[in-house]
Amino acid sequence: SNSFHLAVMPGEGIGLEVMEAAATVLGAVEKRFELSFHQEHIPGGAHHYKETGAILPKDGLERAGKSDAILFGAMGWPDIRFPDGTEIAPQLDMRMAFELYAGVRPIRAIPGVPPVLAHERWKDIDLVIVRESTEGMFASRGKGEIIDDKEARDTQVITRKVTEQLTDFCCKLARNRRETRGTPGRVTLVDKANVFRSFAFMRKVFYETAAKHPDIDARHHYIDAMALDLVRRPWDFDVLPTENLFGDILSDLGAGLIGGMGFAPSADIGAAHGMFQPSHGTAPDIAGKGVANPTAMILSVAMMLDWLGERHGSSAARDAARAIELSVDHAFGTMNLRTYDIGGRHGTRHIGNTIAELI
Amino acid sequence: SNSFHLAVMPGEGIGLEVMEAAATVLGAVEKRFELSFHQEHIPGGAHHYKETGAILPKDGLERAGKSDAILFGAMGWPDIRFPDGTEIAPQLDMRMAFELYAGVRPIRAIPGVPPVLAHERWKDIDLVIVRESTEGMFASRGKGEIIDDKEARDTQVITRKVTEQLTDFCCKLARNRRETRGTPGRVTLVDKANVFRSFAFMRKVFYETAAKHPDIDARHHYIDAMALDLVRRPWDFDVLPTENLFGDILSDLGAGLIGGMGFAPSADIGAAHGMFQPSHGTAPDIAGKGVANPTAMILSVAMMLDWLGERHGSSAARDAARAIELSVDHAFGTMNLRTYDIGGRHGTRHIGNTIAELI
Ligand SMILES: CC(C)[C@H](C(=O)O)[C@@H](O)C(=O)O
Ligand SMILES: CC(C)[C@H](C(=O)O)[C@@H](O)C(=O)O
Repeated sequence: SNSFHLAVMPGEGIGLEVMEAAATVLGAVEKRFELSFHQEHIPGGAHHYKETGAILPKDGLERAGKSDAILFGAMGWPDIRFPDGTEIAPQLDMRMAFELYAGVRPIRAIPGVPPVLAHERWKDIDLVIVRESTEGMFASRGKGEIIDDKEARDTQVITRKVTEQLTDFCCKLARNRRETRGTPGRVTLVDKANVFRSFAFMRKVFYETAAKHPDIDARHHYIDAMALDLVRRPWDFDVLPTENLFGDILSDLGAGLIGGMGFAPSADIGAAHGMFQPSHGTAPDIAGKGVANPTAMILSVAMMLDWLGERHGSSAARDAARAIELSVDHAFGTMNLRTYDIGGRHGTRHIGNTIAELI
Repeated sequence: SNSFHLAVMPGEGIGLEVMEAAATVLGAVEKRFELSFHQEHIPGGAHHYKETGAILPKDGLERAGKSDAILFGAMGWPDIRFPDGTEIAPQLDMRMAFELYAGVRPIRAIPGVPPVLAHERWKDIDLVIVRESTEGMFASRGKGEIIDDKEARDTQVITRKVTEQLTDFCCKLARNRRETRGTPGRVTLVDKANVFRSFAFMRKVFYETAAKHPDIDARHHYIDAMALDLVRRPWDFDVLPTENLFGDILSDLGAGLIGGMGFAPSADIGAAHGMFQPSHGTAPDIAGKGVANPTAMILSVAMMLDWLGERHGSSAARDAARAIELSVDHAFGTMNLRTYDIGGRHGTRHIGNTIAELI
């Protein structure tokens, strides 16, 4: 099928602005590739919570779940919190509710974006962090204990089932990347198995599962060494599955290497659902000014099209994904577009319009 | 007093080599500064475990505990493990046994070391990560549960007592740095309080304690944002206390920014004891070749002298610490010494001898 039903959840802050740019790009894609999108808007976020007492409309989750894919902007606001002081982050709820176990966060150097690393090989950065997104430390969200104002605890949970799913997902991803981009087909689990039993267990299950993919080069790396090596030689890595909180940390580090959160797209994938969102948040400091960088959101649209294309056998959707990526590279690498976050003067709309035109 | 009893635990692998270079430097310091060191060697490590069934000699901990300071090289070996698969890491045991709650890991750009970041301000990197080293996630070491080969758990513990100690320590450190180096006197707790109650608790206790140090600018930062900002603008940070595992990750990331683990010293400080060691491990791949970079070990000696000087009112020890730091800067910045880890050809002994001569 070439016709898709999208749940569009722009959220708040710059989420609204980058989603507008994404919509412009989606419009261009519809025209050029004989694709059609039915967009259903679903509000939500911290402001929604403040106004209505709920983060999402009552049927919001259900409606999102019925779509072919969810496009998510950003939600959350520093001053609006739950009574226990933790933040309103519906994307976390959705990862759990839809069992979106694979948080796919590609870190790819975009030509033209000023280099962050001094090493000349920075241009070769092309890796994917796959953040397990339903358990790990985040299994403790809302469940931590505080005892007598003296001590507090949170417990990390690693299950065989999810680790197997994650490993299978990563092996397939590495295989797919090898076929389409010539990468080495390597999957490196990032853990801390030298100290923690839960990670030793994760590693064991990882290797057991990876053994079913003999064409894939399966390895492991310690989280601390990986934090170092992502700074020293990120071009040496391919697909990096890891625990939820480790993935949270490493994917921001990775975004830093390629120019910041404005260039880091993401996909949260489960067996039955896919949610696509930029790695950045609502950025209250710049919200409403039209200066947000929509590249991460636009590249998330490309990830969505790739996933829809694969799932529904739509080569038009896959072609559209490639066209978006190439247009982004052209806009920054050849046309010298420069967003505010890298010291330029091209605003959110300008970037969205330019990429739409290139398509 | 100007006479100190040191427990010297070189360990294994390159630990032995860098400790030799450190001994040369200590010898020079003795001559130049009217200090005297009584060095008591204590063996230990993974090979010791393999040979004797114990990581340290029976009275090893006790002897180390009676010294004025512990100089530690590196211990641990990939192939020699505990029956449960976790690594032999006596430094972890010692942090617990001696309640060395403050893992002080300075990240300072050394002139002459090739820049890792493209930004011209890389030279201004001068921050200290203070890794809480007795609880946090590491409270779960050896205690994680594996249930039916299906699920595994590890629990992080944050206590009020240790968080208060850590905060006091960091406020004093920031004050001292402000006085001696002109830094801004800022302490930024790194946490994930937006999601986890244990971190929300840690942050609460942090601010309660920091309020007793009104001259210190106390702030907080999320771990993911910090991983990004350490890549984007590390020169903006001063003292960064954080949970044990976060500190493990961030200090390796930080070491990456200044040329690698070979340049990253550390001090593990408690109320009654201090242990000083390079942040690197035993490096089995290069052990025995004389090519290890001893700078981190030598700078750890400087941290030891600073601490002894402060504790025992020895200005000679403090002067010696400064002399070591200046000699390191001179060796790399002016004499163009280049260790193998940064593409040079100056071996372990050569660096040790040169710094000793400069002193
Ligand atoms: C907003 C926050 C709770 C969230 C997370 O920690 O997962 C964000 O950092 C992310 O990476 O999606
Ligand atoms: C060797 C390892 C167990 C240790 C740790 O995790 O603390 C090391 O990485 C460190 O930073 O001292």
